[in-house]
Amino acid sequence: MTQEREKSPVRISLLGCGTVGGGVLRLLQENKDFLGLRAGGEIEVTHVLVKSPNKPRVAECKKEWLTTDPEVIFGDPRVDLVVEVMGGEQPAYDYIQRAIAAGKGVVTANKLLIAKHGPELVEQAIKNRTDLAFEASVGGGIPIIRTLREALASDSVASVHGILNGTCNYILTRMREGMSFGVALQQAQELGYAEADPTLDVGGHDAAQKLVVMSMLAFGASVNAGEIMVEGISEIEEVDLQFADRFGYRIKHLGIGYDRGERVELRVHPALVRKNSVLANVDGVLNGVFVEGRALGPCLLVGRGAGDMPTAVSVVADIVDVARSRIEGQPGLATRGIQLKHRPVMPIEEVETRYYLRFAVGDHPGVLGHIASALGAESVSIEQMVQEGRALEADDAVPVCIITHRCQEGAVRRALKAIESQVFLKGAPRILRIEDV
Amino acid sequence: MTQEREKSPVRISLLGCGTVGGGVLRLLQENKDFLGLRAGGEIEVTHVLVKSPNKPRVAECKKEWLTTDPEVIFGDPRVDLVVEVMGGEQPAYDYIQRAIAAGKGVVTANKLLIAKHGPELVEQAIKNRTDLAFEASVGGGIPIIRTLREALASDSVASVHGILNGTCNYILTRMREGMSFGVALQQAQELGYAEADPTLDVGGHDAAQKLVVMSMLAFGASVNAGEIMVEGISEIEEVDLQFADRFGYRIKHLGIGYDRGERVELRVHPALVRKNSVLANVDGVLNGVFVEGRALGPCLLVGRGAGDMPTAVSVVADIVDVARSRIEGQPGLATRGIQLKHRPVMPIEEVETRYYLRFAVGDHPGVLGHIASALGAESVSIEQMVQEGRALEADDAVPVCIITHRCQEGAVRRALKAIESQVFLKGAPRILRIEDV
Repeated sequence: MTQEREKSPVRISLLGCGTVGGGVLRLLQENKDFLGLRAGGEIEVTHVLVKSPNKPRVAECKKEWLTTDPEVIFGDPRVDLVVEVMGGEQPAYDYIQRAIAAGKGVVTANKLLIAKHGPELVEQAIKNRTDLAFEASVGGGIPIIRTLREALASDSVASVHGILNGTCNYILTRMREGMSFGVALQQAQELGYAEADPTLDVGGHDAAQKLVVMSMLAFGASVNAGEIMVEGISEIEEVDLQFADRFGYRIKHLGIGYDRGERVELRVHPALVRKNSVLANVDGVLNGVFVEGRALGPCLLVGRGAGDMPTAVSVVADIVDVARSRIEGQPGLATRGIQLKHRPVMPIEEVETRYYLRFAVGDHPGVLGHIASALGAESVSIEQMVQEGRALEADDAVPVCIITHRCQEGAVRRALKAIESQVFLKGAPRILRIEDV
Repeated sequence: MTQEREKSPVRISLLGCGTVGGGVLRLLQENKDFLGLRAGGEIEVTHVLVKSPNKPRVAECKKEWLTTDPEVIFGDPRVDLVVEVMGGEQPAYDYIQRAIAAGKGVVTANKLLIAKHGPELVEQAIKNRTDLAFEASVGGGIPIIRTLREALASDSVASVHGILNGTCNYILTRMREGMSFGVALQQAQELGYAEADPTLDVGGHDAAQKLVVMSMLAFGASVNAGEIMVEGISEIEEVDLQFADRFGYRIKHLGIGYDRGERVELRVHPALVRKNSVLANVDGVLNGVFVEGRALGPCLLVGRGAGDMPTAVSVVADIVDVARSRIEGQPGLATRGIQLKHRPVMPIEEVETRYYLRFAVGDHPGVLGHIASALGAESVSIEQMVQEGRALEADDAVPVCIITHRCQEGAVRRALKAIESQVFLKGAPRILRIEDV
């Protein structure tokens, strides 16, 4: 039977044909020969589901493939594989469920969907002995899912630290060079890195979705995304970048995960990382993921986190994988070995790391003493403390900056509350975490 | 039939049981359950071939596995998979050929062997419809082979730049901090990074072997390794590191490959890379490979290039892959899609890049003019030229340092010959290449 299968092609249908879908069709056409060789048989497109059949498409998209009716695809038993590149939650969720139920393999680039429904969809795929592959859902051009799934198949992952959002990274890189947040964001939008509505990017929620997907593979964790503390970059000020630089750090927006026994520690926020660390130098629109394997040690992967062609390369790599497993009569390869277990996220108060604290204080005697005492009362120990300059006028604020030793975030928060109740603060204190990666 | 196979385990035999082999046995034991799950069936060790059966082994190595007779393994039809972790050319080469001929899958960590006989062994494996997997042969803890084979399955690779030797990288990192070459090498040996005979490492030949293996996967190229220009790091001087720093560069030892149509450009040498480039910050004993995919764009992978456990993780990841493809009754997965073609290596004289040239000259009038004219006569155009200080005594040498624009190496070499014929040179000129990655 397998021998016969090798002669018949794998038939795939695309759901959506935007920029990523167009890139997929281009790669399938341009590299037809060696893709067929790698998959062990020809990959043949049968349908492309679109909303507007008359909209112009890439040259590789044949007119006869276009359909507006999903039933044509789900009802056709010859369709082996469905490639979801439409994005958004619905109707993508519905379509993927139906494709899996019909025993079709599924390749998706949809991080929102996998972050929200991944564990359930993986379970459904395993039950139906079919494939669900989602490399392109995290860091477009970085083979992180594959690395977690295969290269680390023999190891267990202790932690992941990822620069997961290209817009945030671009903005922070430009701000380090002296640009304001607003101008950097505008430039990111003009260059096509940021969405028209950049809230998901700069607010950290895009990175949080990717962290949830990674933690499925890294820790076998199915989590409640609502339990993850998410901070964006919009409150980072120039003075923070300057202090960070002075202390030997850069500020990066990170998605962080640690295996903590029964629980997982997952959090998304800007963080100080040492200038000479590998992640500190992943700049501009690049993404990077740093994985610490218990036996493997450190492993860093860097690449384009988004963009049509990098994402399309990842989608087509998944198509080849899934096609191959179907040609071999052994679907289920992409999901095999994924064991998911619901795991609670460690409350942020219990997280232990080092902290960067900045206060805008009135220039009065005793101020530093008050701050130090409040921190001391919660056993938060100070590594460095800098007061920058003197106020010109009696009412002006002076920045005081503190680097703590390792301590629990709950203790830091309690200390800040005690400090905030003092009169001399000119604005809310800034708290940033320091990650030693 | 496949259903029956899933019930029976995959039986593997190790050739060699040194530190990597011991690590493999430890991982197989510690992670038995999830390895079995990922492979789709149990992985069972049957034999471990050793020279001295009475030598102490890791606790995971059972006495009854030990044998000194390779015939016991090759003659046993129940052995599905042979794991070669003995190293060296012979008898490993002979054993791997026999294992493939017997239809057994092979996993090897042997870069020398794959660099020298890879194309022929891959061909033999394809012909025998069995697997030959060699992730661990390049950059122990970096999933570079898998990434080239699978994640980039849908793309073609334009170039690779790799920090491929941890000893070289460690020495250059320490030298940048002010240590001498000799002391840094001794420290690398004490820390176990460098071999007792460090010639293969610091001479660049270890990196060259890895480059040959990578170019098989990246460019489908089977090459004559003797055609590759290989330079080590032993002639790098402190003054070069200082000049590089001053011009905004760091010196890294790189293995470099470019797809050049019918030919490939392959070379191994120390090179100047910009301080803010991602490779420049891969320091110490870490390895890093920067791949430029035509559609994917840039992709950097960083990790431990050597070490028992990182290498063992890669070996066991390959074991899982090969075991899975055998359990599914579809051996040949690891070699599928590898198409090799003999391709000539571009002669170094035809290579085009930018150059760093350093001369030790007598402090006489007209010296700079002589050098500049000789370069100009070969159309080598100068981007920057620095003469450092003045000689204290009439006979002292003064360093003159030049950064060229992009030009052919042949032209630079002809110009240097013309300059060397002048009397004012106090020693051979230093030529280093500049790589814009």
